[in-house]
Amino acid sequence: MKKVKVYITLKESVLDPQGQAVAGAMHHLGYQEVKDVRIGKFIELEIDSEEEIDDKIRAICEKLLANTVIENYRYEIEEGVPQ
Amino acid sequence: MKKVKVYITLKESVLDPQGQAVAGAMHHLGYQEVKDVRIGKFIELEIDSEEEIDDKIRAICEKLLANTVIENYRYEIEEGVPQ
Repeated sequence: MKKVKVYITLKESVLDPQGQAVAGAMHHLGYQEVKDVRIGKFIELEIDSEEEIDDKIRAICEKLLANTVIENYRYEIEEGVPQ
Repeated sequence: MKKVKVYITLKESVLDPQGQAVAGAMHHLGYQEVKDVRIGKFIELEIDSEEEIDDKIRAICEKLLANTVIENYRYEIEEGVPQ
């Protein structure tokens, strides 16, 4: 079993209204030193497969998890998760 | 300027219906080897501060970013982001 961590973030050129709203809330709470907030997704997968795992993860990310028009994705594969 | 990466995940004991829905979609696409999906948030902050930065990040996480009843958070601080 492999544990895969997927990070999905908006492309730099894409406006992040959610991040801006959170930044505004932080300023409202008194944290003026927060200059920028970008919000993304962090997805943990457990995959019971050894072959072509990179191809599978890329396909899953591109078909399902990320909107590649406006989002980037990257992933990390962790070794054997105990059964 | 410091870049902080915050990871917010549901506590182990908390059901993740969103993750289950995504897992179902993956199975539907033919990826039966995906055994579990957990969905969280990945937030990138830029903070223009040096003093007590850990205290500030913890306060921001606990007051605003994470619902500590059902979520865990962890963070990483990266050194100087070029101005």
